[in-house]
Amino acid sequence: MPRSWWGWGNVEDAVDGAERAALTARVAAILPGADLTVHRPPAIESLALPEPRVAAPGPLAALASADPADRAAYAHGQAFRDVVRNLLGQIATPPDLVVRPRTESDVVDVLDWASGANIAVIPFGGGTSVVGGVEPRLDGEFAGAVSLDLGALDRVLEIDRASRAARIQAGVLGPALEDQLREAKLTLRHFPQSFEFSTLGGWLATRAGGHFATLYTHIDDLVESMRVVTPAGVSESRRLPGSGAGPAPDRMFLGSEGILGVITEAWVRLQDRPRWRATASVHFDDYGRAVAATRAVAQSGLYPTNCRLLDPAEAFLNAGAATSGGVLVLGFESADHPTRPWMERAVEIVVEHGGTLPEPVRYTDSDAPAHGGGTADTWRSSFLRMPYQRDALAAQSIITETFETACTWDRFEALQAAVTTAANDAIRAVGATGVVTCRFTHVYPDGPAPYFGVYAAGRWGSTVAQWDEIKTAVSEALSAEGGTITHHRAVGRDHRPWYDRQRSEPFALALRAAKSALDPAGILNPGVLL
Amino acid sequence: MPRSWWGWGNVEDAVDGAERAALTARVAAILPGADLTVHRPPAIESLALPEPRVAAPGPLAALASADPADRAAYAHGQAFRDVVRNLLGQIATPPDLVVRPRTESDVVDVLDWASGANIAVIPFGGGTSVVGGVEPRLDGEFAGAVSLDLGALDRVLEIDRASRAARIQAGVLGPALEDQLREAKLTLRHFPQSFEFSTLGGWLATRAGGHFATLYTHIDDLVESMRVVTPAGVSESRRLPGSGAGPAPDRMFLGSEGILGVITEAWVRLQDRPRWRATASVHFDDYGRAVAATRAVAQSGLYPTNCRLLDPAEAFLNAGAATSGGVLVLGFESADHPTRPWMERAVEIVVEHGGTLPEPVRYTDSDAPAHGGGTADTWRSSFLRMPYQRDALAAQSIITETFETACTWDRFEALQAAVTTAANDAIRAVGATGVVTCRFTHVYPDGPAPYFGVYAAGRWGSTVAQWDEIKTAVSEALSAEGGTITHHRAVGRDHRPWYDRQRSEPFALALRAAKSALDPAGILNPGVLL
Repeated sequence: MPRSWWGWGNVEDAVDGAERAALTARVAAILPGADLTVHRPPAIESLALPEPRVAAPGPLAALASADPADRAAYAHGQAFRDVVRNLLGQIATPPDLVVRPRTESDVVDVLDWASGANIAVIPFGGGTSVVGGVEPRLDGEFAGAVSLDLGALDRVLEIDRASRAARIQAGVLGPALEDQLREAKLTLRHFPQSFEFSTLGGWLATRAGGHFATLYTHIDDLVESMRVVTPAGVSESRRLPGSGAGPAPDRMFLGSEGILGVITEAWVRLQDRPRWRATASVHFDDYGRAVAATRAVAQSGLYPTNCRLLDPAEAFLNAGAATSGGVLVLGFESADHPTRPWMERAVEIVVEHGGTLPEPVRYTDSDAPAHGGGTADTWRSSFLRMPYQRDALAAQSIITETFETACTWDRFEALQAAVTTAANDAIRAVGATGVVTCRFTHVYPDGPAPYFGVYAAGRWGSTVAQWDEIKTAVSEALSAEGGTITHHRAVGRDHRPWYDRQRSEPFALALRAAKSALDPAGILNPGVLL
Repeated sequence: MPRSWWGWGNVEDAVDGAERAALTARVAAILPGADLTVHRPPAIESLALPEPRVAAPGPLAALASADPADRAAYAHGQAFRDVVRNLLGQIATPPDLVVRPRTESDVVDVLDWASGANIAVIPFGGGTSVVGGVEPRLDGEFAGAVSLDLGALDRVLEIDRASRAARIQAGVLGPALEDQLREAKLTLRHFPQSFEFSTLGGWLATRAGGHFATLYTHIDDLVESMRVVTPAGVSESRRLPGSGAGPAPDRMFLGSEGILGVITEAWVRLQDRPRWRATASVHFDDYGRAVAATRAVAQSGLYPTNCRLLDPAEAFLNAGAATSGGVLVLGFESADHPTRPWMERAVEIVVEHGGTLPEPVRYTDSDAPAHGGGTADTWRSSFLRMPYQRDALAAQSIITETFETACTWDRFEALQAAVTTAANDAIRAVGATGVVTCRFTHVYPDGPAPYFGVYAAGRWGSTVAQWDEIKTAVSEALSAEGGTITHHRAVGRDHRPWYDRQRSEPFALALRAAKSALDPAGILNPGVLL
């Protein structure tokens, strides 16, 4: 299926027709007076892309493309500001070439060539970065810039059924990865929102967070070993369930966002496909009590697979539930045993904190995913459509973005207040009207990962600048209140000011030194992290 | 209580009298013909320690000791070879000084002085390293060597009850740490075998494994943030429940074994004190089926707190249970809910794999630890006495040591066979007789952490050389079979040959570069890791 060059996903899945009309009506109700004129992307031929500055030598030429459609599609990621700039035809720094290695040895050759020729190399998985991680907006002077698309490295190479693990190439997209594991009745069970269009290598390079609320959900915890091509040689860690031999080598490459090397393979931990599921939607009258209930569940040792607290605005907008205190979507899954005792205890906890269950808990026993209606499922379907709808709204001058962080429980109330105030103030300052919502994407015993939604009516042509102001205000607030600048989206180029403040100077020194050792020519994703 | 300068723990807790007699009788039965003459440690005054080469300047002088008793006690760790060398009075490289900072700023001053004067600094927590991690056996030429004892930094500074976390100084020993958390009804619940005599900082620097079999047991997973004094400045990470901002900074210092900096504080994740416990001892006729049962439990998503498979020899020697297939000690604990459904499902699984329960499952509901007799408790008591008994046997020419690793499930059978063969061959090659046992200390969904015990009758005066040969043979075997050279004891100086082979060259380059950036004078624990 053809992919959109300017926005999310597949061309044919874009929002249109009845969905567009319904969405527009809903937004008009929330943001009355918004100018919802639909703006269309320019034709690729009309884009005045700068001429490519470099050409791939010898055998690499066959892997390289200077096609304007490629260069335009690889120029930006999938942030709100990326999509809007595409719609406006503002593509200032496309890669000179898109190079598609077919083997790991092609990757080695590309890095050799680029190191010698002072060409920046941007490792590119699915291109779903929302932090400027794949945009050739470079720090330093380079002869050219190449996007290195790992998409041809898309195979599951080996499955170890006893250990429930597989050796997988880094360029594989989520669905193709799961397809190749299905016959062995195994699953990686890592479902970031970008799942359909992002890759294993991208997840590893950005420390992706999965869909589940607790335990084995972050890609960091699903890795046994990694293979990484660096300009200084290929690094391969030993495949181990655990180790205490020095600083964990994989942890240096996890989150390195392409600045230390190109991930080509990993051994990852799999799980049996879940069979038993329990789902409940818990309503609250008071948001403070809802937070306390969520915290109690997070600290109970029950480890729910879902524990997603939607604040009242989020519950209303994305799950159609009218409450004064929000909705906690609670779920347990297992491939081994019915989860009733787990759910029953979790329900006891939330009821003790004032929660009510308008619908009974749903228990299912099946290999098929449970889709029986109800608030939880409404929310799940809208989750998958969100990126498409974000694009549709972006084309109608709506500033629609989400900001994610994590903080300890003691700081959450102040952080939420500060972020909400900062976002509302910034929306007003840019002359817009809007709403701010909050949900938890993950919960830890020591704190939640809050995820803020901002929806504001912007002015066409100014929404990127307006977004930048709101983004800055929110980032300042969450950083000042002790949150992380990113919980699962990475730093890229867009989060640099706050990341630089968040990390310690000695750690920055060490990371810079490690990069110099592995990438002496400094060609790998310059401007990211360092 | 006075600490032993030559061996484990408190002087008054050393094995003696009836315990010595019983132990001697037991060993004589297993290793007939062994010369079990008891050798006593030399008097400290009789040790011909080299003169200190350096003196601490100015204000640091008040923190420094050149007392021979200090220098002897800080010269070695607690490995078998350390204890035997102490008994033989072989102390070749004691530190010139033991320095005891009272504050973090003292630590800064010591590193400044040492960096300028080319003096090696060995961070010292409880001194329980069994891998040569605290021994001033240096790589490089130094004007002197200082052991930096963090013991005065022993306070819990702050408790955040909502997030269940505390800010704790790195020099605190396990029991003092738990004492300071007791009033808040919280626990770090990190119980390595060295618990009584090791420190938070030591656990962090060596990636210690706790007592529990699954989930939150490794100190790596219990850290929110760390404060580390490096010669290039103080590094402090932000206190966060989770983050995706670049490579995890704490993971660079976790396992850095004192080569990058001196850990002075950490925010750690705590838990409510467990109330409900369930314990079972499962007997097997066939060890292969016992391993399969353990694997099934590890992959069930039940996450037992104990899941310790003892092979038949281990079960007999340390738990007094005669079986042909070994004993699986299974336990669940919770502060939130009775664990009966968890245990019942685990018992179903092990019974499906041929396990039997000679005693019924014991369920307790109490704040007090469960000590009701039975195989599990017999094993627990002997666990705590093991280091003392190891010393007693070492003084009777018995080579008694344990080797720990981790591997994926697919490799375990071959690894166990290879290690057992290598150990038995090596025991024979050094002219000894002995037995080799195996237990699992931790289990992961993708593999166990096997722990091998070797007990052999040595020749007094030669047991260190004999040990070295056995250690080398075992290390070669487990490394060749895909295990890690250390699962939870660290690399130190003794594991270097295998660690150097296990880690990739690019990672070594990066780590070396990071060290040069943080410790330009190269004074921190030289010879460890790099």
